[in-house]
This record gives sequence, C-alpha cells and structure tokens, in this order.
Amino acid sequence: MIKEAYKLTATEALALCARGKLTSVDLVKSCLTQITETDDAIGAWAYLDPGAAIAQAQECDRIRKAGLAIGPLHGIPVALKDIIDTADMPTARGTPIFRGRRSGNDARLVELLRGAGAVILGKTVTTELAFVHPNGTRNPHNSDHTPGGSSSGSAAAVAALHVPLAIGTQTNGSVIRPASFCGTFGFKPTRGVISRTGVLQTSASLDQVGCFGRTLADVALLTDVIAGYDGRDSTSFARPRPGMAAGAAAEVPVTPELIWFDLPFNDRLSEAAREGLDAVLDVLGPQVTRMEPADTLSNLVAVQARIHEYEICQHQAEVFDSHWDQISETLKPVITRGRQITQAEYEDALAVKASAEAFFDDFFVEFDAIIAPAAAGEAPRFDADGTGDPIFCTLCPLAGLPSVTLPLLVGETGLPIGVQLIGPVEKDDRLLRTARWLQGQLAAAAE
Amino acid sequence: MIKEAYKLTATEALALCARGKLTSVDLVKSCLTQITETDDAIGAWAYLDPGAAIAQAQECDRIRKAGLAIGPLHGIPVALKDIIDTADMPTARGTPIFRGRRSGNDARLVELLRGAGAVILGKTVTTELAFVHPNGTRNPHNSDHTPGGSSSGSAAAVAALHVPLAIGTQTNGSVIRPASFCGTFGFKPTRGVISRTGVLQTSASLDQVGCFGRTLADVALLTDVIAGYDGRDSTSFARPRPGMAAGAAAEVPVTPELIWFDLPFNDRLSEAAREGLDAVLDVLGPQVTRMEPADTLSNLVAVQARIHEYEICQHQAEVFDSHWDQISETLKPVITRGRQITQAEYEDALAVKASAEAFFDDFFVEFDAIIAPAAAGEAPRFDADGTGDPIFCTLCPLAGLPSVTLPLLVGETGLPIGVQLIGPVEKDDRLLRTARWLQGQLAAAAE
Repeated sequence: MIKEAYKLTATEALALCARGKLTSVDLVKSCLTQITETDDAIGAWAYLDPGAAIAQAQECDRIRKAGLAIGPLHGIPVALKDIIDTADMPTARGTPIFRGRRSGNDARLVELLRGAGAVILGKTVTTELAFVHPNGTRNPHNSDHTPGGSSSGSAAAVAALHVPLAIGTQTNGSVIRPASFCGTFGFKPTRGVISRTGVLQTSASLDQVGCFGRTLADVALLTDVIAGYDGRDSTSFARPRPGMAAGAAAEVPVTPELIWFDLPFNDRLSEAAREGLDAVLDVLGPQVTRMEPADTLSNLVAVQARIHEYEICQHQAEVFDSHWDQISETLKPVITRGRQITQAEYEDALAVKASAEAFFDDFFVEFDAIIAPAAAGEAPRFDADGTGDPIFCTLCPLAGLPSVTLPLLVGETGLPIGVQLIGPVEKDDRLLRTARWLQGQLAAAAE
Repeated sequence: MIKEAYKLTATEALALCARGKLTSVDLVKSCLTQITETDDAIGAWAYLDPGAAIAQAQECDRIRKAGLAIGPLHGIPVALKDIIDTADMPTARGTPIFRGRRSGNDARLVELLRGAGAVILGKTVTTELAFVHPNGTRNPHNSDHTPGGSSSGSAAAVAALHVPLAIGTQTNGSVIRPASFCGTFGFKPTRGVISRTGVLQTSASLDQVGCFGRTLADVALLTDVIAGYDGRDSTSFARPRPGMAAGAAAEVPVTPELIWFDLPFNDRLSEAAREGLDAVLDVLGPQVTRMEPADTLSNLVAVQARIHEYEICQHQAEVFDSHWDQISETLKPVITRGRQITQAEYEDALAVKASAEAFFDDFFVEFDAIIAPAAAGEAPRFDADGTGDPIFCTLCPLAGLPSVTLPLLVGETGLPIGVQLIGPVEKDDRLLRTARWLQGQLAAAAE
C-alpha cells in the first residue's frame, strides 16, 4: 500500500496503478482524507460525495481487474469547477440562484473524462457566475490570502493536494492567475481546443477551458483527454488538436527564442515578482529579446472588459432580470455597466480583438513564446470583493493564444508566483515543449 | 507522385503522406477519378461534391505544411452511409421523403472524424431508411449481384477502390453481410462503443455503427477514431474503449480457442461456403470446438425482427404517417406488421434479448471467439426487393457482441464470402487480435 497517495501526481499514480501497486480506491480515499483534514481552512469544494467518488473508483478497479479497456486517466480523481455540468452532481455556478441545480447532462469535456476512465471527484468553488465576487475559498499556502479566481477552488484543490488534476475556465485571468497564486501549473490551451458545451456561458467570445496540475506532464495529459472538436461550440475548430503530452515530453530542436514585452502596466509588479523575473531573464540571457508592445496591445484590458461585460449581460439576461436580489453587490455594478454598453461599442471592441489576433498571426514566426508575469505578484490578502489583478492574463483569452504558468518564483511573504509563457495558436505542443525547456534551464542554473 | 493512389489502404496512405511522398489532394483526386470511371455500373454514391472534397484535402495539406497538428486519419477520405448527418452535405436516408434534407449538424462520429483530420468524401447509398428496400447499388465484383444492405454503398465503395474507409450501421446484418458480399473487412464493435447521435434511428435497442476497410488494421484505425462516450446515446457506456489498432496489431499470448455452432440454419449455406468453412476449420484443427447452440439462441431471428419492426414504427411513426405514399411496397408490409406487434410481444422479445446477453456474459471465459459464416454464401443476384439473407449476422446486434468479417472465401461464381469472428463485449481488441491470428494461420497453411 502506497503511503500518502494524495501527494502523487496523476502520472505517478497511473504508473503505480499499472504495476498493481496502487488501486483507484486507495488513491481516492487518500485524497478524500486529505480533503477532510484540510478543507475547513481552505473551502475549495462546492460539492463532494465521497461515497459516489469511491464507487467510481471501485468501478475503475473492477474494469482493470476484468481485463477491460483502460483509459489514459484510468482511476485518477479530477475536480471540476462548479460551472461544468455533470449528469450525476449539482452544478451551482457559485450563486444561490442555482443552488442545487442539476442539469442532468454531462458537459462534453466530462463525457471525455469518463471515457478516459477518470473519477469525477466533485465540484470546486467558483466565484459568483465565474465572474468577480469570490465565494470564500482561501489560499492553501496562507488562508489570509486569496487563491485567485474565478477558478478558485480548482487551483486551491490541486495546490492543497486534494486532487492531482482540476479543470477551470478563463475569460480574463481565471486559470493562469489562480494557478500563479496557488503555486500550481496552469494551462489554458488555444481557444477552441476544448469544448464548452455544458459549461456556463459568460462570454461566448472569450470563455476558454483550462487545466490545473502539479507538473507540466500532468496538465498536458489532462488536456489531451478533454480536447476535441464539437460542432455545438462556436469557437471549436474542425481540425486535429496538438499532442499536448508529446509536446510536454519533447526536447527542443533548437534553443527557443523568447520575447519580453515592456508593458505599460509592468509597474504593477511587486518587488519580489520583478526581481524573480529579472533573475529568470538573466539565466536565459540572449534567448530573450525585450520589445516595446505594439499599439494594438495597449488597450486590451478595456476591450476585454467591454466584450465580457456586454456578452454576459446578453447570455445571462434572464438570470439577471429574474434574480436581481440574489446577485452580489460586487457583481451588480458590473451588470449595470454592461447593460449600458452599446452595440457599436461592443463591435468596436470585437474589431480591436480581431486586430490583436491578426497581429499574432505573424508574430511567432521569429519567436517561440512570450515570457511574461502570470500575476503582479503573490496572492493579495483575501478580499470579499475580489480575487486579484488579472491584467497579465488578459491577452490570451482575448487573442485566443495558448498560455501556461509555471510556479517558479516566490513572493515577499513566501507565497508562490508564476512565470507565464504564451505561444502561437494551435501550436500548444510547441509551447509546452518550450515550457519544459525553460524548467530545465532554470533547474540547471540553480545547481 | 504515387501512381494509382486510390488502391492504397489508409495505413499505407498515411505512411506515404508522413514521408512527403503523397498529398491528401493527390489521394482524394485519385479516388474521385476511380469513382468517375467506375461508379456508373455500381451506384455506390448518394452524394458527392468533388470540389468540396478537394477543398478539405487542400486544408489537410495546408495544416501539414504549416506544422499544425496532424490527426490519426489526416487527409484520408472516408465515406459515410447516407443516414449519418453532416453539417455540410445532405443526408437523404435512402428515401425520397428526405431528398435534399440537411440537418445542419455533424453526427458525433463525424465530429470525431473531422477532429482526426479525415476528409469526408461523401454519402454512400443506403437501402430505404436503412431497412429492406435497396436503392440500386450493384456489387463491384459483378453488377448482376447485390452488394448486400443496408450499408450497400459503404461496402461497395470500399470494395471498388473508391475510398479506403467507409462507415455503415448494422441493426441486423447491415455491416457484416455487405462486407462479406463485397469482399471487404467489416467490423461492428461492441454495442455502445460508437455514438449514434446524428445517425437515423431505426431501432434504439439494436442500431449499431460499424466500419469497412480493406485490411484489419484499417478498420481498427477507423474505429479507434470514432469510438467514444456520448451521454446522448442510450447505449453508450461511460467507460474507456478497447484499443482497436493495438488489438489488430498484437500477437496472441496463447493459441486462441474457437467455437463453431452447429446452427439449425447452417443448411442455408451454399456449397462453396460450406466447403470453404470446412477448409478453414481443417486448418484450425483442435483449436475449434463444435457445439450445439443453446436453446436461448434458437429463436433470435424472430426476436430481432420483432424488436426492430416494433421500434422503427415507434421512432419513425410521424414519417410513416405523413409520407405513406412515398414508402416502397417492400417496406409497407413490414411497417404494417410492426404496427401490429403488441407492447407485451415487444417486451417478451426484449426479455429474450436480455437472456441472450446474459448467456454470453460467461460464455467467453473458456473461448476467445465464435467462428461463423458471415453470410450464407456469395452475394445473390440483384433483387429489387432485398439484399440477401442476414441470418448469420443477427446474433451480434441483438446481444451487442463485437464481430468482424474477413474476406477469406470464394463462392461458386467467384464472388467473395466472409468468415465471421464474434467475441465478448468490450473485448474488441482481443477479437481483432484473434482475427489477425486467424489470417496468419490461413496464410501459413496456404504456403
């Protein structure tokens, strides 16, 4: 029997299961114990049914013993942000409006998880309707601090060793920022790689699914499983997906060339973040080219906000109209602002978004990736009205670019800070390969 | 430039594309030329848009050149039975009732094909509503003979070298029998392996998707791509799928043990079929145990018919009511009969079906596969009212068992006859491994 199985990565657990050294039941029970012992201080879970989780694990073990087919995540527990529908659990979307809501259907990505043999452990806390207002989850490293949002519980659960893998979504910074704050890997693949059917729609143009794990290999493995074409999702594309695990395991064929943008908002970086990033850039030396950002990129934060606020008011109009009294005082002014955005202003914002996308079409011919902060610094102190500044994440959901954060830096109070790499669309495998190389360079420099 | 690319199997074409020796455009153009030159005598195609097919192939080649992700069927043309919906082509279901019908959506399996990089070449002729009445397709080996049905065009197109891969469905014998008649490999995996969302429903209990190809490796490859869990399909199961290609490429760990049933309807076998099967059994010698079939299996043909006829009258009630004058004189009496089946008779039939399934739950502990005829003999002469006897295929859709036919025998007039192997549910990989072994045994004996 493996001790402290909850500490294993998915890749490690799969190898032990294949060798008969670990069962899915033992793994799931170990994770459940860890949750019981630590979640009171964290609050990562919105829904958890230990009996149902163990039953899924028993079925995975039965399948393995019966010689039936084994999937790529066979017996591995996965957490889902509480805006992702499952046939057998409620999906409350972080609001009392949907408390106890059961859609009766699995999201497309949940179907893929089940087909891969994963155990759907439960639902993790999201901010209200995956937007601004937090629902109490605390940073596992220090409960006085936020874990970030909106995928608060997904990042916290992975960081707290509750589960090796979790799924979240990002419309602005909601995968990369909580991963940075909680010290996990976070990966938001190219827009359209993962289907959003069965996921709460906050912005059809911007919403994207992403993955949390404790290694690059783990987030890549999870992404491979849930990637696929879905004609019901307007951003899904009818082409093959990059091989994420292959990319994360590959050696670079030539030394990568990176870009660092001297962004106008770099002055928001904390001292520790700035020093940490400078040290990383020092190690990389001439492989990083410093560049002034194009004018196209200067106004992206306002553009993202305009699209996001306009679209959520369209998609959720009925919810806002019918349940105004159940909406937080944090979200109400955002909705009010969103309702005042005109069609013309919205279309202008979409045009800027399109020009940002066009800018990056050619950009990565000369460069492999942009290296950037994942957040302004370590997680700020818990604030009932917010989850930290997403400004360093905005570009990727807006332009549809894949991005990954690696937990490489440490902040003023000892909390983690991520380093973000951003790559060209549909070359997520190359981005993960570059990320692996970056890890290797820094590990070598630290020796 | 590869000459006669239309003759390549999918596996061969993929290898040549990967080495830069073949483009998808050249492959698709070669297939289109072969169709133009031969389809007048065969009539395999219900819908074909050469320009759209070439455009898909160009896109596949562009993706490959751009270094974007390559799928497991990248650039390979695939034909779809004309009851499988596509967003960009009509799906007429073999009846004037649905002439020109466009659903606007891809079937789930079509989404998976597109995500794997396949070129959807077009739609192949089906019998009327995938049931009894043929729509004129002729056997490519001799146009005086039927190709079988209901997946008439899918089998004929693969046999006529129009396309390396095609998809059909089987409710009684509609994959295995036309594959046998046309001399292709045909594989109907375990019930529920492949989603039927977006496929015409003729019997929710019995309809199953299957694949045609010219090698075992090819049908396995295609099946891997389109297999997956779909919560919208009542027979789909939330577990991993067997690895078909791995099974079809594997060596057997021990010599397989096969069963031959002395079925009461074996007297329907033609002389050539009987002699051919005897020769196969001679080669296999003591590896085959002859057995009287259990009583459970004696009445399956009537049971299948009752369920099929009852359910199609339920599922398609509105079509039959609204378009009676457009229904063939072949189908009308079947519908009339189906409408007279009582709920109690139907439930009795379902109970027999359940007992057949239960019988096979334990059956394959001692045996690897059942070896059986795929059809009573070579394809009968074309008959405007039918497509040949499906009796040797009925068991598998009824009990949900996977089955594969191999084009191993030759009939009285030189037309092909298949040998069928049937295995346990969800061990399709083992069945394909056994089929590969059978091919090897017979090849060795022929030397």
